[in-house]
Amino acid sequence: MTTLDQYLKSFEKFMGEHPFQGTPASLYESANYLMQLGGKRLRPAMVLMGCDAFKNSYETALPAAMAIEVFHNFTLVHDDIMDAAPLRRGKPTVHIKYNEPSAILCGDMMMFKSVMFLQMLPEKHLQEVLTVFNKTAIEVCEGQQLDMLFETRNDVSIDEYLHMIALKTSVLLGCSLKIGALVGGASNAEAERLYEFGKNLGIAFQLHDDILDAFAEDAEAFGKQVGGDILSNKKTYLLITAMKQANENQQTEITHWISQKNFDNDKKVNAMKSLFEATGARAAAEEEQQRYYTKALASLSETSLPDDTKKVFESFADMVMKRTK
Amino acid sequence: MTTLDQYLKSFEKFMGEHPFQGTPASLYESANYLMQLGGKRLRPAMVLMGCDAFKNSYETALPAAMAIEVFHNFTLVHDDIMDAAPLRRGKPTVHIKYNEPSAILCGDMMMFKSVMFLQMLPEKHLQEVLTVFNKTAIEVCEGQQLDMLFETRNDVSIDEYLHMIALKTSVLLGCSLKIGALVGGASNAEAERLYEFGKNLGIAFQLHDDILDAFAEDAEAFGKQVGGDILSNKKTYLLITAMKQANENQQTEITHWISQKNFDNDKKVNAMKSLFEATGARAAAEEEQQRYYTKALASLSETSLPDDTKKVFESFADMVMKRTK
Repeated sequence: MTTLDQYLKSFEKFMGEHPFQGTPASLYESANYLMQLGGKRLRPAMVLMGCDAFKNSYETALPAAMAIEVFHNFTLVHDDIMDAAPLRRGKPTVHIKYNEPSAILCGDMMMFKSVMFLQMLPEKHLQEVLTVFNKTAIEVCEGQQLDMLFETRNDVSIDEYLHMIALKTSVLLGCSLKIGALVGGASNAEAERLYEFGKNLGIAFQLHDDILDAFAEDAEAFGKQVGGDILSNKKTYLLITAMKQANENQQTEITHWISQKNFDNDKKVNAMKSLFEATGARAAAEEEQQRYYTKALASLSETSLPDDTKKVFESFADMVMKRTK
Repeated sequence: MTTLDQYLKSFEKFMGEHPFQGTPASLYESANYLMQLGGKRLRPAMVLMGCDAFKNSYETALPAAMAIEVFHNFTLVHDDIMDAAPLRRGKPTVHIKYNEPSAILCGDMMMFKSVMFLQMLPEKHLQEVLTVFNKTAIEVCEGQQLDMLFETRNDVSIDEYLHMIALKTSVLLGCSLKIGALVGGASNAEAERLYEFGKNLGIAFQLHDDILDAFAEDAEAFGKQVGGDILSNKKTYLLITAMKQANENQQTEITHWISQKNFDNDKKVNAMKSLFEATGARAAAEEEQQRYYTKALASLSETSLPDDTKKVFESFADMVMKRTK
């Protein structure tokens, strides 16, 4: 199999050869702006990896990798409007740099472009790939709706939270591998095992993100404000668990920090971090993360892929889990 | 061929059998709300008519009719956010009844559902139908972006305006007929002629709408506020032409009404209607409408459809042109 670096290089080349363009230019400029902000490009790499595992050549899947990355960026631009987020990857979000109507339309255009990229795949794969893609896209919408509904609820359970992040984040990672595998000629059953690997890895990945958001040691490498979730009272795995496991004093302290309108940012972040430790929320999150990581590896081991291919997927999973940003 | 009533009846039945449903319910409720507000269902009727013309049975195209109507409603919900419109078909728009984030997400979900409905078509048609659909969808986005750009420009030409309404409104009518025809087994050339018929009819339809918005005699039947375009200084065919054809006095009067911040609604509407008449803008719009109507009929006559089928399309065009609402 090819290396991750090679996938990313090929993907960046394909992306460079397929910029958004048309008239009026302003419709396409905003999409190019967003795509060029970068990101880890994990999803397109997973599409190519999924294909490579079965076909020992991944180029056929490049349009699918592009479709997934465009879809992912479409969700970012619309989510950023919904969340009123000013920054994305340290730069102004599309609705801030341009305006909100343009950002809505930019996302809409990108959605259709992502389907158009899927149409560039060999026709025999179109129906099955579209089925996975549309199912996933609908789930991502459901995940975002749940995330918004949770904002106004104080009784979100851990199971509900895990279900939400599975839909909002993880199914797209599973989908990336599955689509790649299908294009690579995998049977549906094999592709489904890789889907499960990707989905569970995605949940572990999101839990890792929750933990990093509070505990990242290298703020610069992390790329966004450490403690951002704490400051906005976001109901992450850490906060939900802390609230559930807190003793009476800790409960009072958590309630104090959550309801406080004016506070010193550093003080709140440090206090909540201590509470996440003291209530065992951090340890619980790390255990949960490990549990999903193990589940992911179990799905991988069920595939009939040769051992050296499995090792490539394991290293990828390991890298995702060890990331510090 | 079947009658228009029968198409609409079959379509409503299909729609009733395929409500939006899933979890969380709130994501789907808003979409059902919008779809049930009604509308003329012109586009799904055109899909079925396009199919019927070639296949002498239209049921195969029902999923495509649904896809087009869902797509159309997706554009309505997002356009209403962009235009900050409070009402749609006399009822609160989705972002007013629910909220803006939910409305964005409702539209996103509908857009993927529309592709899912296309997947219900016989597989041999999927690639060609998706190609027309995606191309059209992108054009509709371009049309909406142009429409927004025109808001802040005072030098929009008639040609630019016609191009904008072609993209924003008319290509979807052409697309409806073409997709129907393709599902009905038409050759690409025949389907393309019906596309041109639908597109030109669509431009005539939009010009008719511009005229009705100012001059509809039965306000109740029209269903929205007569003079709405005038009150919001919307750059319609009438206003653009009036500004171009006005003499000095008329120019002063138009500028007065357009720049006035406080005014009596009836007075402004009546004054502008008089100006549309006096400058010859109304007559020009009616001529332009007739020109596109004639163009539409010319494309129709180029098809190899039997005369009685052509007559059905002519009656449909005639009905669209004679509508008073």
